[in-house]
Amino acid sequence: MDRKLEWLRVQPPYSDVIISSRVRLARNFVKIPFPHKASPEDAVGVVNSVADVVKKEGIFNGMELLYMDRMDDLQRRLLVEDHLISPEHAMGDGGRAVMLDDRGIVSIMVNEEDHLRFQCILPGLQLMDALDIAAKMERDMGKHIEYAFDSQLGFLTAWPTNVGTGMRASVMVHLPAFVLSGRISNLITSVNKVGLAIRGVYGEGSASLGDMFQVSNQITLGPSEEEIVDNVEKIAGFIFDEEMKLREEMYKNERLKVEDKVWRALGILQNARSISIKEASNLLSLVRMGVTLEILPYIDTGMLNMLFLAIQPAHVLLGEGKMLSKAEMDIKRASVVREALNGMREGGKNV
Amino acid sequence: MDRKLEWLRVQPPYSDVIISSRVRLARNFVKIPFPHKASPEDAVGVVNSVADVVKKEGIFNGMELLYMDRMDDLQRRLLVEDHLISPEHAMGDGGRAVMLDDRGIVSIMVNEEDHLRFQCILPGLQLMDALDIAAKMERDMGKHIEYAFDSQLGFLTAWPTNVGTGMRASVMVHLPAFVLSGRISNLITSVNKVGLAIRGVYGEGSASLGDMFQVSNQITLGPSEEEIVDNVEKIAGFIFDEEMKLREEMYKNERLKVEDKVWRALGILQNARSISIKEASNLLSLVRMGVTLEILPYIDTGMLNMLFLAIQPAHVLLGEGKMLSKAEMDIKRASVVREALNGMREGGKNV
Repeated sequence: MDRKLEWLRVQPPYSDVIISSRVRLARNFVKIPFPHKASPEDAVGVVNSVADVVKKEGIFNGMELLYMDRMDDLQRRLLVEDHLISPEHAMGDGGRAVMLDDRGIVSIMVNEEDHLRFQCILPGLQLMDALDIAAKMERDMGKHIEYAFDSQLGFLTAWPTNVGTGMRASVMVHLPAFVLSGRISNLITSVNKVGLAIRGVYGEGSASLGDMFQVSNQITLGPSEEEIVDNVEKIAGFIFDEEMKLREEMYKNERLKVEDKVWRALGILQNARSISIKEASNLLSLVRMGVTLEILPYIDTGMLNMLFLAIQPAHVLLGEGKMLSKAEMDIKRASVVREALNGMREGGKNV
Repeated sequence: MDRKLEWLRVQPPYSDVIISSRVRLARNFVKIPFPHKASPEDAVGVVNSVADVVKKEGIFNGMELLYMDRMDDLQRRLLVEDHLISPEHAMGDGGRAVMLDDRGIVSIMVNEEDHLRFQCILPGLQLMDALDIAAKMERDMGKHIEYAFDSQLGFLTAWPTNVGTGMRASVMVHLPAFVLSGRISNLITSVNKVGLAIRGVYGEGSASLGDMFQVSNQITLGPSEEEIVDNVEKIAGFIFDEEMKLREEMYKNERLKVEDKVWRALGILQNARSISIKEASNLLSLVRMGVTLEILPYIDTGMLNMLFLAIQPAHVLLGEGKMLSKAEMDIKRASVVREALNGMREGGKNV
């Protein structure tokens, strides 16, 4: 199935900073142990139940059920990089499966930490829409499957941190000005204080390749789904405003330095014959910021969002048919970036 | 007078390494103290004598006599950067003057260290031709002016290091592979051993911006002009061969690394909004080498030779009409480089 990954598209008005919005709902079957405790037979039973629902007319039209252990390692890693499954799910053991649409917007992980995880990821700031779509899938499935539910606690989950709504709402944000100005650690502290988590999307820990971060709710028990989404959206709006202010400020105070950095980043990306994921991420980040500040001529930021994925290991390996060494990966990565950025201005010329 | 600087042109077959060939003949008037000992009246007398010769029909046609103290600082520094006068001469004191043609090939400094210094600078490896042209000027002037000459020592000069032939023969060479491979210090030692000097063209000491070096004779007394020229040409030919071998070797052994370096250099030069003379020189050096190795598409190396001058301080100031700060110089320099390198591939596109 060819997935378009529509969540990479540019979705105004917040797209200069906010890449995408994701809602994930965790649900479990009654009377079947959670996946980490389930027997192989139980796990297969869960997948079969889901497969039965899928086959029913009119529900989950156009979605495909894929068994993780029938996919090769590269296919699974591609889905992780596409943000459609979790890294844990990609391990492929324990009767795992995933349902995917052909637009790269929704996925249902089966036998991840929970029996079912309904996910919807949309471009820009559209958490409420993402919640609607995820909730619709959850309701449709719920017509055929009884979810584990407690009248006090709400939906039961494998980890207590998900109990209640079973919901995780998150936005992916691009924060080059927060990082360049050194204010990212302050932001992390502030966001934590209001009960949200913020962490790097690419790479480990607080150091995020390409200045991409994910902001999500920590609390799942107590407030309603709508209240949680509303809270994350408000904070995302605040982060958008602050990031834009910091960009403008930085550009005003250090116009030349910013212009020079941004143009050099583009020049290197358009010409390098070998580039690491770290350098490519950081230069792409500068170019993305440069486009939003109108320093650079128009470049589709959706294409830049796509490039952030295209430079990841599994995407670099696409079409190779074999493993590549680190040096070969760097060469291939450079050529992928060059093609995208030079192809884009075909017929045009550098200023 | 608009000087074309023909010595910057590409002159095969050695032009990948050898930029230009220069011969300079030092002569002094009899019975007049050397410039550093001359009275103001003596110095003016020397200039006037030269001016008289210039006015005579048929001699030094199309050359212009310029009084250094009537030129502004920028004009004088431009002539230094164009290699038409020495930095000392540009100080403009002591009745200094210079005669220049309109092709940027010959110059006669009056009241530099010696009363007269006839210089010819030609593109590529053409020392014998440069000697012929300089010697013709020297003979023409000698029909009207008696030179200080000793039957034992030959031509007398202000510094004993120039006595005899009064000749300095030099070639400007581009040695990126010697520098990158770390073999430049060995070369300097070897060249010194055979009685020649080698030093950086731009910047002080053995560190040369842009990997540009000048190889010249040390001995002026003993061998004939032709023998000296022959010796410098032979060594220049040897340096050419070695540099080309080192470039090929480096490219063969580290193909990817060299390609990446060269393309990045071009990308930065085509996009930077601010660039120091040091960085610009080093990147231009890589690009020049990349063109000769056919890593980059065709770029006129004569244009690159011109850029090495165009990034020098006085050239950067051209057309500004005022002094610029270091930051302003770096901006202007970047725009000069960008215009030259992007103009060149107008209508084309990056690969």
